[in-house]
Amino acid sequence: MNKNRLEAFSDGVIAIIITIMVLELKVPHGETAGTLKPLLPVLLSYVLSFIYLAIYWNNHHHMLHTLHQVTGPILWANLHLLFWLSLIPFTTGWMGENHFAELPTALYGIVLLMAAVAYFILQTLIIASQGRESLLRKAIGSDWKGKLSPVLYLIAIVAAFESHWVAKAIYVLVALIWLVPDRRIERVLLQREGSK
Amino acid sequence: MNKNRLEAFSDGVIAIIITIMVLELKVPHGETAGTLKPLLPVLLSYVLSFIYLAIYWNNHHHMLHTLHQVTGPILWANLHLLFWLSLIPFTTGWMGENHFAELPTALYGIVLLMAAVAYFILQTLIIASQGRESLLRKAIGSDWKGKLSPVLYLIAIVAAFESHWVAKAIYVLVALIWLVPDRRIERVLLQREGSK
Amino acid sequence: MNKNRLEAFSDGVIAIIITIMVLELKVPHGETAGTLKPLLPVLLSYVLSFIYLAIYWNNHHHMLHTLHQVTGPILWANLHLLFWLSLIPFTTGWMGENHFAELPTALYGIVLLMAAVAYFILQTLIIASQGRESLLRKAIGSDWKGKLSPVLYLIAIVAAFESHWVAKAIYVLVALIWLVPDRRIERVLLQREGSK
Amino acid sequence: MNKNRLEAFSDGVIAIIITIMVLELKVPHGETAGTLKPLLPVLLSYVLSFIYLAIYWNNHHHMLHTLHQVTGPILWANLHLLFWLSLIPFTTGWMGENHFAELPTALYGIVLLMAAVAYFILQTLIIASQGRESLLRKAIGSDWKGKLSPVLYLIAIVAAFESHWVAKAIYVLVALIWLVPDRRIERVLLQREGSK
Repeated sequence: MNKNRLEAFSDGVIAIIITIMVLELKVPHGETAGTLKPLLPVLLSYVLSFIYLAIYWNNHHHMLHTLHQVTGPILWANLHLLFWLSLIPFTTGWMGENHFAELPTALYGIVLLMAAVAYFILQTLIIASQGRESLLRKAIGSDWKGKLSPVLYLIAIVAAFESHWVAKAIYVLVALIWLVPDRRIERVLLQREGSK
Repeated sequence: MNKNRLEAFSDGVIAIIITIMVLELKVPHGETAGTLKPLLPVLLSYVLSFIYLAIYWNNHHHMLHTLHQVTGPILWANLHLLFWLSLIPFTTGWMGENHFAELPTALYGIVLLMAAVAYFILQTLIIASQGRESLLRKAIGSDWKGKLSPVLYLIAIVAAFESHWVAKAIYVLVALIWLVPDRRIERVLLQREGSK
Repeated sequence: MNKNRLEAFSDGVIAIIITIMVLELKVPHGETAGTLKPLLPVLLSYVLSFIYLAIYWNNHHHMLHTLHQVTGPILWANLHLLFWLSLIPFTTGWMGENHFAELPTALYGIVLLMAAVAYFILQTLIIASQGRESLLRKAIGSDWKGKLSPVLYLIAIVAAFESHWVAKAIYVLVALIWLVPDRRIERVLLQREGSK
Repeated sequence: MNKNRLEAFSDGVIAIIITIMVLELKVPHGETAGTLKPLLPVLLSYVLSFIYLAIYWNNHHHMLHTLHQVTGPILWANLHLLFWLSLIPFTTGWMGENHFAELPTALYGIVLLMAAVAYFILQTLIIASQGRESLLRKAIGSDWKGKLSPVLYLIAIVAAFESHWVAKAIYVLVALIWLVPDRRIERVLLQREGSK
């Protein structure tokens, strides 16, 4: 399996997911500001999910950059990740339409958690395929972001049933943690280039 | 016709099919767990079809890898395959929404059967275009998976009217048969590289 | 403007058009064969439009193959073609849902006619950009298909108000005329390669 | 981050936005010309937005052509632009369905304004990354189009509450200003090539 094709397919699917998500922002019947108001939480959910998917796209790219050979397990781990990402438009729409009610807000976190787990599996398989001198392992270092995120998602899922504000705040927090550009892989790649 | 463009177009169509399928998972009106319950069979159908489309994408890629020249018949055989694959979101949605009722479950199998036939036609044309020393023919060997699948689909289509559990079990079985990574083409390609 | 990017963008748009068209095939509420019956004309319209879009994709590729430099007018003539193609899912859905009624059947032809005109404009601009020794002009020769199609569309549009069977037959006829692979451009390209 | 992948992802998203926008042109229930009439403003909005997105795609391509290295801020400025473009199908549909009523027409302009601002930020970041001898800064010159457009959008947004005709006229005017092919970047690129 060619790495470029895997990359192009993943990019295509993420581009489609990020774009069809906007279809959940249904055109209201009516022309007044009042008809827009119930759409506000849908829009906010959309913004949040847009950022999450952009982060995944960005990190996924960096991760694949270190990959040499696409094996069967890596291929399916990648599809597994795309599967969970493909459910984000649904959970985004449900959370937005119900104005961040308990269960929809929790389900939103569950899908994010599963995507994070899928990302972790894919990362582990790539590292394993690279052997001892794995570039990706060096690059991610302690991977504190990757380890902290699932814990925060879990807290948010439980918190959603108490206060959806806490859950929302955690979702925003995790996005912010990742938004800070992840220069680890770039740095290690540059180091290697420099040492040649 | 350039092979890369055929590949890119096919990938694009499959990426779109796999992603718009999730639009059948309609956001429910209501925030309780009860509103999610009727969506469970839709989700299960989605998972099954996601796996089928991923398998097609994967095998399609391996098959095209052996192709040298895109002829008119190969081009149209490929479009014919994409046509049947494009109907999968419809049959997935209908089967899911009707909780695996008889006719929807049978129709799901009919479209899978037609896609398998279309795949077989495409494969036969590529082998014919490669002449005696066809790499693809060597690679697929006895092609027992390709021959068994249509038979299993036929059994599932008939079985759907008796018990949708049997039909569903067969659909899952065929997916599992194909999920086992198909190393045949890779192996033959490697052999050829090695003998050079 | 890079030719590859124009090609990739056009391919992307055509791939999306051909795939979202299937969304007009709405999943029916009900599990009996009776609920499928009204979908039959929608399916037939879909098959017809799928073939038309596949033909456009194929011929568009051959035409761009002869192109050297993307000028502003060529860029916009290409977008103009994509615009008319993007209306095909709408006219397909309307014609199918109304079981080939007069006006929808005529409108289907009007959009096909406009797409053919847009294709002709694009072709003319490419030929003009290639100067006297235009490869594309040689390749299309008398271009009898390109000249006959608009006439047939016009007849079909008028005929739709008398008998939708005649209109449908003409649409199928035009598709068949084009389905015969257009080897003209390939032949001229091969000749040029051979004479080198 | 590889420039080609950024370009391909942006192209993919724009191609999807431009195409799913046509889904707002809902197939009417009924076969008479009367059922089409309320769709006319939706179609006109679609044409306008199609042209806007095509302009963005075209100029975006020229701008990225001058880019050497994708930095984190450029990546996110690009995603920010795609976010505002992704809202265009929604504002297009709302404006069209409400026959260019006050608020929808104003909102249409607000999203265009935000997209223009996002484009300006991206442009500024690319220029900054290129240092003193920025090719892009030379290419855009005084950038009068880029500076005039937001002013015109602002006027249109205010005018929408007085007369939607004025607002519409301004939207068409801005599109026309940009439709005139922007040869500035091409010219500067050619000059550089010539001086080598």
